[in-house]
Amino acid sequence: MKYYLGLDVGGTNFAAGIIDENYRVIEKISVPAGAGRSIEEITEDMANVSLEVVKKAGVDISDFTSWGIGMPSFVNPRTNLLVHANCFGWKNVPIYSYLERHIPLPIYIENDANCAALGETLAGGAKGYENVLMLTLGTGLGGGIILNKKIYAGADMMGAELGHTKLVYNGAACTCGQYGCAEAYCSATALIRQAKEALERDPESLMVRLCDGDISKLEAKTVFDAMKQGDDTARQVIEQYIDYLSCAISSFVVIFRPEIIILGGGVANAGEILRRPLQERLLVNTYAGSEIGVPDIKIAECGNDAGLIGAAMLEKYGMNRNQK
Amino acid sequence: MKYYLGLDVGGTNFAAGIIDENYRVIEKISVPAGAGRSIEEITEDMANVSLEVVKKAGVDISDFTSWGIGMPSFVNPRTNLLVHANCFGWKNVPIYSYLERHIPLPIYIENDANCAALGETLAGGAKGYENVLMLTLGTGLGGGIILNKKIYAGADMMGAELGHTKLVYNGAACTCGQYGCAEAYCSATALIRQAKEALERDPESLMVRLCDGDISKLEAKTVFDAMKQGDDTARQVIEQYIDYLSCAISSFVVIFRPEIIILGGGVANAGEILRRPLQERLLVNTYAGSEIGVPDIKIAECGNDAGLIGAAMLEKYGMNRNQK
Repeated sequence: MKYYLGLDVGGTNFAAGIIDENYRVIEKISVPAGAGRSIEEITEDMANVSLEVVKKAGVDISDFTSWGIGMPSFVNPRTNLLVHANCFGWKNVPIYSYLERHIPLPIYIENDANCAALGETLAGGAKGYENVLMLTLGTGLGGGIILNKKIYAGADMMGAELGHTKLVYNGAACTCGQYGCAEAYCSATALIRQAKEALERDPESLMVRLCDGDISKLEAKTVFDAMKQGDDTARQVIEQYIDYLSCAISSFVVIFRPEIIILGGGVANAGEILRRPLQERLLVNTYAGSEIGVPDIKIAECGNDAGLIGAAMLEKYGMNRNQK
Repeated sequence: MKYYLGLDVGGTNFAAGIIDENYRVIEKISVPAGAGRSIEEITEDMANVSLEVVKKAGVDISDFTSWGIGMPSFVNPRTNLLVHANCFGWKNVPIYSYLERHIPLPIYIENDANCAALGETLAGGAKGYENVLMLTLGTGLGGGIILNKKIYAGADMMGAELGHTKLVYNGAACTCGQYGCAEAYCSATALIRQAKEALERDPESLMVRLCDGDISKLEAKTVFDAMKQGDDTARQVIEQYIDYLSCAISSFVVIFRPEIIILGGGVANAGEILRRPLQERLLVNTYAGSEIGVPDIKIAECGNDAGLIGAAMLEKYGMNRNQK
């Protein structure tokens, strides 16, 4: 049995894991990310948690042929610099030189949303498919594209940033500095903002009660819960959100015509109450939808492990290029 | 020397041509499309003009290994039907069965914008590049994507319909029945509409005089000509158009990060007066543009032959799939 070593880096936690040939997580350790410290300390932690999980699994680091890492960023292959990782305040960091001090393996780094798409394709909701679109509806809007069972990250491995395509020309400010990005309308953060705006018009909404009168505690789940209990304002917010999301997805559909669409991230936990109307709106809002149909939308199945599984399998299913 | 047979089908003309191994057009015949007639008649014409150019070149139809056709449509590979060709009023037409009666060769059919992108990559402005985005700014907004020197047309060969991605959520009606498509803001037709709207606010604009007071004659060129002569309304229309176009392109850049962007079609004839400010706006309007830059924009070089060259080379550089 061959094993694969993966690390899923987020702003809150690092999860290191060992994956077997059947894409099962056989060992996993999660530690706090400890953002705010130096690059030296954070990258040393990334290595330590990875070495620790290897030890825990009772294998040796020399049994692995690579170390795969998913991060909320991407590496510029011309400079080998990690372009930016907002959660750590990093910009143009020579990440390989920090990491290779600790683990003597070929290192593959890929955007975390791309890793999640790969994980779901190998082990989750898109198992058996070769052309997959995955969207992660979380703090941001992560997008991953699998073409012919491999991650597609653009001609230069810095692409497929689906969350930063334009959805609303001259629209709302996005965290990236641009305006009207799909992320600014379709992330969990955007849904919460849209709900708060609706509460200004309807301060009596059930949403307020569901977060004990403290709307700073309002989450995506609050909006869905209020809708389920018949709150009309919450229903309007969700309907508008689903229309935005269906239009964003429609653009990816007319470009890629994937076989299946997977939704992950916190908002996707809403399940059928999100998925079914989204599927209907996607058909209506997609070019030639009535003639050739649209792909099925499914909720992700690997949960938090999708990114870890994908990261571990980068050597085999990442972009078909040499990485450091 | 091996030769390739191509046919470029448009709503106005059919151009059949013989291409040599160096992607040069060695013989070409153009005939009126004769839209409005029956499918039998039009497909027979498509075959006849192709057989005629073979004869004119002094070669034999058996010297060819395929017949490549570019059309403003696409074939559904599940049904083998041409999904729609608005210029002929066709919908779900069994095009292969009509064509194969006349020419006993394997037939490759591909969207004309994809063929143009391939032609420019093999013989034009994108020669030497392997990852290319081409936009045709004509009656519609055609988009073609070349990945690793091959046409990318989506997982099912019905994709890369870049003109029908959403640019302006809930925006202007598009010819396709959707709203806010990039085509509805970035085609030549859209530019003319935008100019006419501006003339309602400024009926004294030089644009009116340049089309002899008959604004039904207003063309994309009229707007650029008026701007060159100092007309402020024309300048505003062009600046707005360039901002729309740069935002549409920015979405394709963050997805594909192509090596180069080629502009074809009537609007691209404006040349540097379009290209230079568009390049500047693209940098400003693209996610992470200031950190990793944006691809160079170039004006197409093959003119009307791009689609013909690409069509002829479909056997070699089309989607890597069996076609009928």
